[in-house]
Amino acid sequence: MPAPGSLMAAEIAEQPAVLAGLLDDGLGQVRQVASVLAERSPRLVLLAARGTSDHAALFAKYLLEIRLGLPCGLVSPSTMTAYGARPALADCLLVAVSQSGSSPDLVESMTVARACGATTLAVTNAPASDLAAAAELHLDVRAGAERAVAATKSYTAQCLALWLLVDAMAGGDGGGAAAVPAAAEAMVGRRQEVSELAQRYRFASRVVLTARGYSYPTAREGAIKLMETSYLAAHAFSGADLMHGPLAMIDPQYPVVAVVPDGVGQRAMDPVLARLRASGADLLLLGGADCATGDGAFLRLPDGLAEQVHPVVDIIALQWLALEIAVARGLDPDAPRGLSKVTATW
Amino acid sequence: MPAPGSLMAAEIAEQPAVLAGLLDDGLGQVRQVASVLAERSPRLVLLAARGTSDHAALFAKYLLEIRLGLPCGLVSPSTMTAYGARPALADCLLVAVSQSGSSPDLVESMTVARACGATTLAVTNAPASDLAAAAELHLDVRAGAERAVAATKSYTAQCLALWLLVDAMAGGDGGGAAAVPAAAEAMVGRRQEVSELAQRYRFASRVVLTARGYSYPTAREGAIKLMETSYLAAHAFSGADLMHGPLAMIDPQYPVVAVVPDGVGQRAMDPVLARLRASGADLLLLGGADCATGDGAFLRLPDGLAEQVHPVVDIIALQWLALEIAVARGLDPDAPRGLSKVTATW
Repeated sequence: MPAPGSLMAAEIAEQPAVLAGLLDDGLGQVRQVASVLAERSPRLVLLAARGTSDHAALFAKYLLEIRLGLPCGLVSPSTMTAYGARPALADCLLVAVSQSGSSPDLVESMTVARACGATTLAVTNAPASDLAAAAELHLDVRAGAERAVAATKSYTAQCLALWLLVDAMAGGDGGGAAAVPAAAEAMVGRRQEVSELAQRYRFASRVVLTARGYSYPTAREGAIKLMETSYLAAHAFSGADLMHGPLAMIDPQYPVVAVVPDGVGQRAMDPVLARLRASGADLLLLGGADCATGDGAFLRLPDGLAEQVHPVVDIIALQWLALEIAVARGLDPDAPRGLSKVTATW
Repeated sequence: MPAPGSLMAAEIAEQPAVLAGLLDDGLGQVRQVASVLAERSPRLVLLAARGTSDHAALFAKYLLEIRLGLPCGLVSPSTMTAYGARPALADCLLVAVSQSGSSPDLVESMTVARACGATTLAVTNAPASDLAAAAELHLDVRAGAERAVAATKSYTAQCLALWLLVDAMAGGDGGGAAAVPAAAEAMVGRRQEVSELAQRYRFASRVVLTARGYSYPTAREGAIKLMETSYLAAHAFSGADLMHGPLAMIDPQYPVVAVVPDGVGQRAMDPVLARLRASGADLLLLGGADCATGDGAFLRLPDGLAEQVHPVVDIIALQWLALEIAVARGLDPDAPRGLSKVTATW
């Protein structure tokens, strides 16, 4: 019998090669899609996704709003599926993100949006999927078959593919992500360091993850990894939303993980971290050179990456953390309770 | 010294009168705003809010998408404030929702959106606020001064005001909400029943709330009430998102609260409830006549309300639940740790 989590660990370790492959072989398709989108010049982008893929969609939302000035919304699929809404979507781009491309509610949202006039793009790891077939355009994230229930390499591949797409739409050549595979390789190599950090969460029942801006999706995705592998009640908040209520539940027994690579998001987190320290929170910071470490635990994030590509790399530390906490608890992250690899929702 | 939570309890009890007052006196302003919006005929609606008000905004998102077929997005304020995004917002309506109308990031998002060409509407409980001044249009939710840190009456007033606005934009006369004040009165009268339910959560450290469609904002708002008053790690998921990962953490020691008034959302929740029952979850259902009660605890929601106005009333049960759990734990919900009434974020 394989060691618990060996499937997830193998796919975590594949990420540098997957990301390098996407940079080498995926740019042609990215540019084709970007040139169609440039012709259509959508006024608005809607993003539809579930679970882990929803966090890649949220990352794309920040990129589209900040780099392209395109207003964006995350779709609540039930409005078009369960409630039968038929929105007016001319001049609108719908992007659906899904590893398997098979959840019926996403396929139906895609079909409805296309019938309502939207330009439609599926971003999947499955070019032969129903979702890819339902969309006018398809972007293959080229992660290779993913077998672990907890998605890892498909997530970072989605994030990089979406970054490349927005970069191409902004006139870039993808060069801003050139350092990503090596940085991912370095992060994959830090499993032992993360394993040591994981031991102190052995008996935690809950944890809050927080970040702002580009790194907020990293906090969200880290939380779902912890929920589905370690069964921790892992809650992610943008630093600003944390201040509007949830801060009250934080006490020294409540561990907090903050993701603060250098940049705008890190500076916006400064007052949040000050408040957390004042409330005696147990802090683990994933931060860069500009991060004031204080008393808590610290995991240094790689240098030399722009803030906007950090999410592709930083999540790897939280993937290891989720795996190592699960293993420390005697769980098998490859066999999470009640889940299967493809989740169908309607 | 007043009893713990007496301020919050008094404001919960004011809600029937606040809602009746809004129906009596607020319709004129609602119609004025609706007629300006009809002239502009926006193609897209962006909603900006934080904390409790964000859940009223999410409720409005469902209404706008389903009843008016308008694509909507929830704004991440940091894109315009911290990252300096200047999106192209002609034909776009920005709605900012805030009790106090004073959080700097919302005021700045409003100002930027207006400069970028958006039609701007502030929905506040403070007509003299900076946010109301920054917007072209203002809708007063008329909840009266709110003193408790945990927002209650301002939330239901926001939800009703937004429902009335969308109803007016759809050509309605507001009559669909006529039964709301009496139903709210009946729910306010059930404090004792909720108090008895609250006792079994005395030692819970975490809880999941779930719903789909119109009631999903109720689950989100119930969660923030529990976090800020009872310090419970209260997590809200749409029923579909719960199946995509977080389901794994649910075991018989993990209480789940589902909000399922009769209607489309309830039917979409049926497979979710079946999965939760199969995983042995401890269930409390807030449901109507069509809800299969099964083994768990049950709180019957009022009859005679359309699914789309239920959120204005159903949340009252969760407000009482949050207050009663806090009191049972010896906490004072009027003095939550680390919070003040107005939260300023940048």
